[in-house]
Amino acid sequence: MSTPVSNDYVYALDREFVFHSWSTQGALNPLVIAGGQGCTLWDYDGREYLDFSSQLVNTNIGHQHPKVIAAIVEQASSLVTVAPATANLMRGEAAKRILARAPSHFGKVFFTNAGADANENAMRMARLFTGRDKILSAYRSYHGSTGAAIVATGDPRRVPNEFARGHVHFFNPYLFRSEFHATNEQEECERALQHLRRVIECEGPAAIAAILLESIPGTAGILVPPKGYLAGVRALADEYGILVILDEVMAGFGRTGSWLALDHFDIVPDLICFAKGVNSGYVPAGGVMISKPIAEYFDHHFFPGGLTYSGHPLAMAAIVATLDVMAEEGIVDNARQIGHEVLGPGLQALAAKYPLIGEARGIGLFWALEFISDRKLKTPLAAPLMGQMKAAFQARGLLTFIVENRLHVVPPCIVNAAQVEEALGIFDEVIGEFSGGYMR
Amino acid sequence: MSTPVSNDYVYALDREFVFHSWSTQGALNPLVIAGGQGCTLWDYDGREYLDFSSQLVNTNIGHQHPKVIAAIVEQASSLVTVAPATANLMRGEAAKRILARAPSHFGKVFFTNAGADANENAMRMARLFTGRDKILSAYRSYHGSTGAAIVATGDPRRVPNEFARGHVHFFNPYLFRSEFHATNEQEECERALQHLRRVIECEGPAAIAAILLESIPGTAGILVPPKGYLAGVRALADEYGILVILDEVMAGFGRTGSWLALDHFDIVPDLICFAKGVNSGYVPAGGVMISKPIAEYFDHHFFPGGLTYSGHPLAMAAIVATLDVMAEEGIVDNARQIGHEVLGPGLQALAAKYPLIGEARGIGLFWALEFISDRKLKTPLAAPLMGQMKAAFQARGLLTFIVENRLHVVPPCIVNAAQVEEALGIFDEVIGEFSGGYMR
Ligand SMILES: Cc1ncc(COP(=O)(O)O)c(C=O)c1O
Ligand SMILES: Cc1ncc(COP(=O)(O)O)c(C=O)c1O
Repeated sequence: MSTPVSNDYVYALDREFVFHSWSTQGALNPLVIAGGQGCTLWDYDGREYLDFSSQLVNTNIGHQHPKVIAAIVEQASSLVTVAPATANLMRGEAAKRILARAPSHFGKVFFTNAGADANENAMRMARLFTGRDKILSAYRSYHGSTGAAIVATGDPRRVPNEFARGHVHFFNPYLFRSEFHATNEQEECERALQHLRRVIECEGPAAIAAILLESIPGTAGILVPPKGYLAGVRALADEYGILVILDEVMAGFGRTGSWLALDHFDIVPDLICFAKGVNSGYVPAGGVMISKPIAEYFDHHFFPGGLTYSGHPLAMAAIVATLDVMAEEGIVDNARQIGHEVLGPGLQALAAKYPLIGEARGIGLFWALEFISDRKLKTPLAAPLMGQMKAAFQARGLLTFIVENRLHVVPPCIVNAAQVEEALGIFDEVIGEFSGGYMR
Repeated sequence: MSTPVSNDYVYALDREFVFHSWSTQGALNPLVIAGGQGCTLWDYDGREYLDFSSQLVNTNIGHQHPKVIAAIVEQASSLVTVAPATANLMRGEAAKRILARAPSHFGKVFFTNAGADANENAMRMARLFTGRDKILSAYRSYHGSTGAAIVATGDPRRVPNEFARGHVHFFNPYLFRSEFHATNEQEECERALQHLRRVIECEGPAAIAAILLESIPGTAGILVPPKGYLAGVRALADEYGILVILDEVMAGFGRTGSWLALDHFDIVPDLICFAKGVNSGYVPAGGVMISKPIAEYFDHHFFPGGLTYSGHPLAMAAIVATLDVMAEEGIVDNARQIGHEVLGPGLQALAAKYPLIGEARGIGLFWALEFISDRKLKTPLAAPLMGQMKAAFQARGLLTFIVENRLHVVPPCIVNAAQVEEALGIFDEVIGEFSGGYMR
């Protein structure tokens, strides 16, 4: 290209030609990004940003990890793409490595392009395997934007998209805003399970194919389930011959300080959906890990689903390199340790200091601060204020992930203590300003 | 990897761990592919194949085009991925180049990961823009495998997947097996339009958001519509305030000897879906070209759809390079010329020679031979015979794309006359054997 590349040029090109996700197009003001490395991104003026969003909580391995980039370059040089019906080295190696992180009764991987189609295909498998129709999922959830995934999604973005059938929603545990009038974790857990049992009974157990749940609901607010909840869901499902699908698209592959978020809980699901962290989104990929009984069912039953880029070699090479690098460099351990020793305590301290923060919650490098304007009513902090807060962080060189009245604190899993301290300092400063001096 | 890589190793890895699209897993025997260049692929034993499938009709630019590979390597080295909410150089450049190939009243591009989610989002836009529910699509069609795309799909793979609402199907023109008792193209065209009008009237025009059609139905049999059909569809849609969505996922970007397949017809749609040829699938990508009135509607209305990898920089860099190379190297012209001068006449000659071929039809490098076992009843040649034919082609080093009783002849758009002659020779030999000497 002969045009000199500048922030202005890229911005103008974007505004003229590019239609954005989840937006009113006329109201957009996208940040220009030119390059990155590790936890840092920069624009064409050399302005740097510390990335505490991991983009859409996907670059768990940080930006431009040299070994993963080298693997992509190597694969591109030999065979960038091939049809899914062939046998391909990287596809097999990727599936093998992914299954090594799954519970032992998992047997095969079906690769998709992303998280939404991972959920689509898991729901398809569950319906065909059980011969049942309904999928139960949580109101506080996000499962993707395609036909069935967006209707499985519980959050209000589902409402203008309700063109799929066979979806029923239930309330998942969230003590801070309990739907069950609970006052402690154990009560929230018991009542949430009682509620789920009632929904199953009322919907007709024999009509329900699967319960689809994020192991830890992410976009909905990083809602770490109370001890016993997921085990209780599994027991309920078993009682009625219902499958359990865990959506690990956001929580999986290092984010929570373990390989899969389900490792923190006492549950073995039937299907596991993944994307994002599996290769940090370096090349679009997602998929479904399939437990052996379901994989075997499809040994002699036709599977009526598929996609052109299933097991795309370039994406697969990125998975192989990412998972190898995460193991070699102890990146999952880093996420656990930094989360446990630095990020978690730092955010808890901020929550203790500022009444503006209703709750700090999370695990590993998967945390949220929930902002409220009234401690008694827990009124969510108004959207314009959240927007100003995001801008204030950005003005200080910190990229954050804001959802409704929450700051999701989700740096790459390679983040170090100094970077976390830097971000905590900026949080303290900005939240202090927004608190107008009002502290505990 | 320390294990020496062999066909056996890759095959075993695949069979153990990889779950395949559209299959009964136990019945698979996938071909091992190690590398490729141009129209050639090879395995680990150095066995070469001439690729007349373009994989899933996507590698229009051939395998491993050095300039596109170089662009992927360059982008990987600077910024492999970034969130869709940012402004990114390659995203803007890709959108600009795509729109340069669209009718002039097209304004923006929404990027997806593939063809299915392109159709999902086009249907979403049409429903929101019109405030109407129903999508009309053809029985002879394939639109992808996610929730709504698979129900918009007309072919029987829809049936086990009918979990979306608001879809109605109609019969599209196909003179060889006319649904309308037509005996010539003009009659087929008129009767198909009359049928579509009746479906619209009976479904309630005010309930119909859009008519979704492949410009040239691909998987359904490369059904080049009769002259006047698409113009007639546009006129009908206009009469009732219905949008027209053209699915150019398979037919677009060079395949038919023009940039878009719609260029051959007298129709201007409201939305155009693309994937595959736009970057030859080197990195997963698809999208929707949006006409200005619809783009402007979403300037002040929220668009409730999105995806993590929308406008993925690596995929975008592959689009920019692919479209530039296709223009520089005259690849679209090559597809037109080779199709018109060599492939088309060659296939017509085979059809004239062998009664086993019921019809040869197509345009550019988008052709099908339809095999029949009875010329009067047009009985489709039995599936096992088609499977044996595919194996016979493969044994002679030719990779083909077989759908039901048809051989889809869809080489990369860079194919040369000598390669087409070679393939035609193999077709002649094998079809001759299958005809058991029975010629006209
Ligand atoms: C839990 C979960 N599932 C599914 C998805 C959808 O993934 P994608 O955007 O890749 O389709 C997301 C995306 O944020 C997610 O967080
Ligand atoms: C016309 C058409 N639309 C949509 C699709 C779906 O594309 P994808 O497999 O990338 O989801 C295909 C795939 O073959 C297609 O041919």
